[in-house]
Amino acid sequence: MSIASMRKALTGVSGVPVTAYDGGGEVEPRITAKVYARAAAAGIHNIVAAGNTGEFYALTPQEIRIVHEAAVAGVDGQAPVTAAVGRSLREAIGMARDAAAMGASAVMSHQPVDPFAAPSAQIDYFCNLADASALPLVAYVRAEGFSVAEIVRLANHGNIAGIKFATTDLMLLSRAIPAADPNGALFVCGLAESWAPTFTAAGARGFTSGLVNVAPKLSLAVHDALERGDFAAARAIVGKLEPFERMRTKFRSGANVTVVKEAVTYSGLDVGPVRAPGLPQLDQQDREELHRLLRGWEAEGDIQTQPDRQAVKAAG
Amino acid sequence: MSIASMRKALTGVSGVPVTAYDGGGEVEPRITAKVYARAAAAGIHNIVAAGNTGEFYALTPQEIRIVHEAAVAGVDGQAPVTAAVGRSLREAIGMARDAAAMGASAVMSHQPVDPFAAPSAQIDYFCNLADASALPLVAYVRAEGFSVAEIVRLANHGNIAGIKFATTDLMLLSRAIPAADPNGALFVCGLAESWAPTFTAAGARGFTSGLVNVAPKLSLAVHDALERGDFAAARAIVGKLEPFERMRTKFRSGANVTVVKEAVTYSGLDVGPVRAPGLPQLDQQDREELHRLLRGWEAEGDIQTQPDRQAVKAAG
Repeated sequence: MSIASMRKALTGVSGVPVTAYDGGGEVEPRITAKVYARAAAAGIHNIVAAGNTGEFYALTPQEIRIVHEAAVAGVDGQAPVTAAVGRSLREAIGMARDAAAMGASAVMSHQPVDPFAAPSAQIDYFCNLADASALPLVAYVRAEGFSVAEIVRLANHGNIAGIKFATTDLMLLSRAIPAADPNGALFVCGLAESWAPTFTAAGARGFTSGLVNVAPKLSLAVHDALERGDFAAARAIVGKLEPFERMRTKFRSGANVTVVKEAVTYSGLDVGPVRAPGLPQLDQQDREELHRLLRGWEAEGDIQTQPDRQAVKAAG
Repeated sequence: MSIASMRKALTGVSGVPVTAYDGGGEVEPRITAKVYARAAAAGIHNIVAAGNTGEFYALTPQEIRIVHEAAVAGVDGQAPVTAAVGRSLREAIGMARDAAAMGASAVMSHQPVDPFAAPSAQIDYFCNLADASALPLVAYVRAEGFSVAEIVRLANHGNIAGIKFATTDLMLLSRAIPAADPNGALFVCGLAESWAPTFTAAGARGFTSGLVNVAPKLSLAVHDALERGDFAAARAIVGKLEPFERMRTKFRSGANVTVVKEAVTYSGLDVGPVRAPGLPQLDQQDREELHRLLRGWEAEGDIQTQPDRQAVKAAG
């Protein structure tokens, strides 16, 4: 995909589907593909394969490949597929090459995880990957401590379509956006719906979302409101989502993916538990609270359920 | 190695050698083996292969294997080799199996890097790895937010020889040590010489070190002083090391490995730059400051130099 088209897609919602496991704990590619197909059918603008909500770090390289393939198959050309890559720079370059060969539209680089990472050398990591990648890159910035000049260097790289900005340093964001080339990388809110209004006010466009796994209508409604400049409407929908997003922050955000997966299973696709070091599953009380919330959303037509869905078990 | 012998080794200095690269940026196994041999010859009690000072996260799995092999060859039975393993749990289990086959004495699990990690599930990650490993495990705790009960669960696992405790939460350490089984895992200071006196006062024993790459005598002198209970002597040596350790914290600790590698190169073993996202090399001013410090240590007989060392280039 051209970098211009990819930038356009990034102005929308970048959804991050979960990875399904079977009863033996192995990646289940058919159910995983269904999760991706559902997000694409809902009209999500960009689909990120094997992101953090897809448990990237808990997967082996071979499993990441299976998820990327399931994503391309499930999305089936209805939206760009942005394949998430990472680990050592050499491995990330290899994964980017594989993603191009399997028909992905772009790659997203996970943040480097080395505990001793210099801000300038983290930028080098992303730029070296962008140099080596045939596909446009989205750089996932989660670390603190970058200067405006360093973020601008990243944004102005010719093969970087977007920066998934995932720290709460809104002053850095506010200063970097006007300092960067307006035709360079798009700055995207990397902290989902709850942060999208403030990031949009600072000049970012689009946002990433785990909520799309179960309630893509609500994500798209937040996006529509922000595109119209209707911050009050966006805040109202964010307020509705807030109990869901807040539950994801439990256990030092160890429940982040767990809440999403339990909601997808509620909706009729059994995607299994979360692997360690994520919280494997919710306790009975949290699960009941989640189900109460989802029943309310369901009554209002806000969640996606499977046509062949079985009655939900007694938990809720 | 028996878990009792491994616990004993951990009461000493756990040295973490650097990984050497050749001019083309590839891992250089012969020079890497020499770095390991030098630490062992100096009497370091436990040698950690492919730790963070060894750039674990910047290496591919195949390169990690090469480093583990170079470590076993270089140490040559003079000390236990603790092979560092990590990434997804499945990969860590595979690396632990390989480490046992190549003759390592123990494995150390790097901290899980998933951004959404629940404290209890991080403990599960370590315990599941310890269950699966034929070799005793050292668990590397870098994350915040654990309860005393969670740390005690880790310490009391039958196949965990030690906890490399690498956060500054000294109250958690002080409470966990007396609550854990005294015959369980040893609590080791994971923040090197500078933190060793305070950790020792809280009940930890032994410490990890990157300084051993160039000045093992100083590391061992800190250790001897703490074993004697002579905190004033330990502080005096730590004060001497302080400019070295402080320089390692530059660029948000992005210079951590860089300072060590430049010092090893100064000593006569050219180990090359650091890979991104570490700082590749020091600027001229920092290098000159480092060389001044090392010349002073050299004059006092505190650093290890190679017998065949060339005159150091003009930099200093």
